[in-house]
Amino acid sequence: MRRFVADLSRKLTPERRKNLVTCVLQHRTCSLFSSFQSQSSVVIPIRFLNTASVDPSMASDYSGSPVTLDTINIKVLNCEYAVRGEIVTLAQKLEQELKENPGSRSFDEILYCNIGNPQSLGQQPITFFREVLALCDHPTILDRAETQGLFSADSIERAFQILDQIPGRATGAYSHSQGIKGLRDTIASGIEARDGYPADPNDIFLTDGASPAVHMMMQLLIRSEKDGILCPIPQYPLYSASITLHGGTLVPYYLDEATGWGLEISELKNQLEAAKSKGISIRALVVINPGNPTGQVLSESNQKEIVEFCKKEKLVLLADEVYQENIYVPDKQFHSFKKVSRTMGYGEKDISLVSFQSVSKGYHGECGKRGGYMEVTGFSPDIREQIYKVASVNLCSNISGQILASLVMSPPKVGDESYESYFAEKDAILSSLAKRAKTLEAALNSLEGVTCNRAEGAMYLFPRIELPKKAIEAAKSANKAPDAFYAARLLDATGIVVVPGSGFRQVPGTWHFRCTILPQEDRIPAIVTRLTEFHKGFMDEFRD
Amino acid sequence: MRRFVADLSRKLTPERRKNLVTCVLQHRTCSLFSSFQSQSSVVIPIRFLNTASVDPSMASDYSGSPVTLDTINIKVLNCEYAVRGEIVTLAQKLEQELKENPGSRSFDEILYCNIGNPQSLGQQPITFFREVLALCDHPTILDRAETQGLFSADSIERAFQILDQIPGRATGAYSHSQGIKGLRDTIASGIEARDGYPADPNDIFLTDGASPAVHMMMQLLIRSEKDGILCPIPQYPLYSASITLHGGTLVPYYLDEATGWGLEISELKNQLEAAKSKGISIRALVVINPGNPTGQVLSESNQKEIVEFCKKEKLVLLADEVYQENIYVPDKQFHSFKKVSRTMGYGEKDISLVSFQSVSKGYHGECGKRGGYMEVTGFSPDIREQIYKVASVNLCSNISGQILASLVMSPPKVGDESYESYFAEKDAILSSLAKRAKTLEAALNSLEGVTCNRAEGAMYLFPRIELPKKAIEAAKSANKAPDAFYAARLLDATGIVVVPGSGFRQVPGTWHFRCTILPQEDRIPAIVTRLTEFHKGFMDEFRD
Repeated sequence: MRRFVADLSRKLTPERRKNLVTCVLQHRTCSLFSSFQSQSSVVIPIRFLNTASVDPSMASDYSGSPVTLDTINIKVLNCEYAVRGEIVTLAQKLEQELKENPGSRSFDEILYCNIGNPQSLGQQPITFFREVLALCDHPTILDRAETQGLFSADSIERAFQILDQIPGRATGAYSHSQGIKGLRDTIASGIEARDGYPADPNDIFLTDGASPAVHMMMQLLIRSEKDGILCPIPQYPLYSASITLHGGTLVPYYLDEATGWGLEISELKNQLEAAKSKGISIRALVVINPGNPTGQVLSESNQKEIVEFCKKEKLVLLADEVYQENIYVPDKQFHSFKKVSRTMGYGEKDISLVSFQSVSKGYHGECGKRGGYMEVTGFSPDIREQIYKVASVNLCSNISGQILASLVMSPPKVGDESYESYFAEKDAILSSLAKRAKTLEAALNSLEGVTCNRAEGAMYLFPRIELPKKAIEAAKSANKAPDAFYAARLLDATGIVVVPGSGFRQVPGTWHFRCTILPQEDRIPAIVTRLTEFHKGFMDEFRD
Repeated sequence: MRRFVADLSRKLTPERRKNLVTCVLQHRTCSLFSSFQSQSSVVIPIRFLNTASVDPSMASDYSGSPVTLDTINIKVLNCEYAVRGEIVTLAQKLEQELKENPGSRSFDEILYCNIGNPQSLGQQPITFFREVLALCDHPTILDRAETQGLFSADSIERAFQILDQIPGRATGAYSHSQGIKGLRDTIASGIEARDGYPADPNDIFLTDGASPAVHMMMQLLIRSEKDGILCPIPQYPLYSASITLHGGTLVPYYLDEATGWGLEISELKNQLEAAKSKGISIRALVVINPGNPTGQVLSESNQKEIVEFCKKEKLVLLADEVYQENIYVPDKQFHSFKKVSRTMGYGEKDISLVSFQSVSKGYHGECGKRGGYMEVTGFSPDIREQIYKVASVNLCSNISGQILASLVMSPPKVGDESYESYFAEKDAILSSLAKRAKTLEAALNSLEGVTCNRAEGAMYLFPRIELPKKAIEAAKSANKAPDAFYAARLLDATGIVVVPGSGFRQVPGTWHFRCTILPQEDRIPAIVTRLTEFHKGFMDEFRD
């Protein structure tokens, strides 16, 4: 353990060092992790990506600075976010090296499989969506003859409709803090069409992607480290980061890898009781469906149990449903938690539920647009006012993202001029993703010591690797978690960037990595070859 | 006092009620406000805007809800944000009334002078900026012949340049957490051209407007209520809201209204010492230049004193410079704090300085695009890593906003095809704003009991009103701060929305309101007439 915190610890005063250790210990107690896992929550900040211009050796010159590691908010210090952590720094360095010395490696590019960022890997945007966005950005061309030649008729019509929904047609004005009312109407209709149950535009809070929405709810719920949020393990590190930044406690519940990352209510109950016995009051349950990084899609009956559990235990259900369009297997279907709870007969006042949606995922993958919304149901008007107030402090989310969120929830329909091309683009992306998921899953499962559940949905595979003891020893010597060691070696040998499982947390003593299914289809065979060759070599090198 | 907190207090458990009172008392102690001012920090949440669909009378039906006012984060409860507070709720109701019963009032529209949102009041976007944005949104039209007819040649060229700076030309991909490197290069060059001193693209963090950047710095700096941030009074309520949300203490320094909202170093020193003697450790000084809501532009010599003060007291200088383009008087000029400190011979390691910039202000006023950046200088690599990490948790800011921030810092130049029209648009907006500021200032100064400093910059006037005792009594009976009472009456009589001075804080016993200078020029005479008539009537009604 000392080895792992040594780097950071050396930079801190004795008192701060004590605090840091206390945090590690508290964390271990609360989250029931092995010391290995706990340490990683402290380690990652140390080796987090350096901004490019500054040389760490110059740190001492800032000795007169008003802000040091000893005097910043310790919640910031303790926060980690592995998806953009050390492995990305290594990748960026390697990319620079390849630029300066082409041919210096056996590969000629870096393949970023660390993050669900489809367009960075060549996925093209949906034409209709971009047409509408461009027209809303520059509405003066709407009446020009040339525009008819450049844009589809229904994109022009849709842009007019949207502009009519914006007071003064001002796409450059701050909107209502929850987002433009007309766009919220459209989104609510989209939710109704999806679920078959009413949706209220006043329940919609448009946000710059799902992340700020999650932060907003954590900010509302967390009062101190005595407030716990039940999170799946493995989890998307936004949740651990946000809980840490807001000073709460992540209470883990483990997904069962053996049953395809199954979510057992008994596990929820056990963890809830264990936390309670330590004086932690559980405020909310996070469910990610389809799962990230685990890719499972919950069954409706399982969802019903979860709703029942939240109702009984008086928990807010925080439903991360950003991958709702990303389903790849015929035997699974997405059901929103709102639909499921309404099906059970629970209405607005029976269950507190927040559903997060994003334009970054789905078949569109418009990550750079930073659009999304949360649908907030089952909160009293008093609490709604408070959520509205927090939203107001940031004025509003970006209007292009708002427009895109409305388009995603209301794409072209049969009969619209764009419908066929829209559908063809969407279908090509989704069916290709399904193929890529299958190919990569099969390739991973063929590797020695690797088992990989299928990606029923989302954008990731999360294979488990049985690492030889020698590899684990080598990782320790290199001051890395074993899966981080594996990922670094994989990157160095192949240019493929994956995120070590320790960044998502995992059952102690197990090792994984997360790999997106996003590289374009024609690149998959080469990836499989490179990965397979690397893995063989790695195992040969470290076999016990 | 009881009357003011009664509404909220009634909804809380005895213990929570005690916490709330403790907060009020602490706040009073720390910020040296009169009880009236302190109360307003508690009052506003109660009467904050209701989301439209929920009927407050239904609150009791949510008695089984896991989240109540008694169990949410009290920092959220204590936070206030007046710019979108009660007055906007009243305005929205009135707007609805006018829609349903046209002609029911002596005015036929609501004039939102409460917020710096130029395009909501008819200001048109800068054509060149929108052309580039539209082309980057839908790059497939760049090669089409029709595009030449619709867009200027230099906007097409600029779009190509920008796309070349984006890896894979993917405007729909997450970028580097600090923003696209090429755009940061452009912004750094723009800063260099402005200041005459080098700027480093790696010091730039692109953000969704200035607000998230301010939050990020507050999150980094504030550890507990023992950490103080020196803020001007009056201040833009983002600062008080953010400090409250992050659990710190706002330590006020008063601007001197008598000397055109002068910033006296002696006042800074006194407040710093007073706070220190109460065990508050001051971490940073916020300076808003040009001032919001006060409109003053600091002199270079004053800025030098401020830099010296921060250096001596080891404070981070948080420079809100979002109105840097909005200067309306020939005898004043904007100087960035970075330029001023470099002029003084202070380099990177001598002063910790964060400069906030936004695309929402200036002559462009692109509020809805949510673009902005902070330039972070004088922090050690260790701390820079932490800022980067926090930025990473939200992945990146929206790409359209990033592009716009680069355009704002690098607009068309002499010789470019768009230059003339760009310059004409910009000049028309800025010179009209200067005219409007002058007309409104003169009108306000002609009113009985009203004095108004000139708006040297920014977008606001902040007149002081000497309210008759009878009006103050009437306000108390109506459970409102006196300036909130005045603003509500003004709205009711004229449809003009202004923000009560109490939302920005002010010297105890003085009353103000903030009014933007943003209504289009042809509306100003009518506003002056309506305001003048109302004020006369108000004074006649309440004259002592």
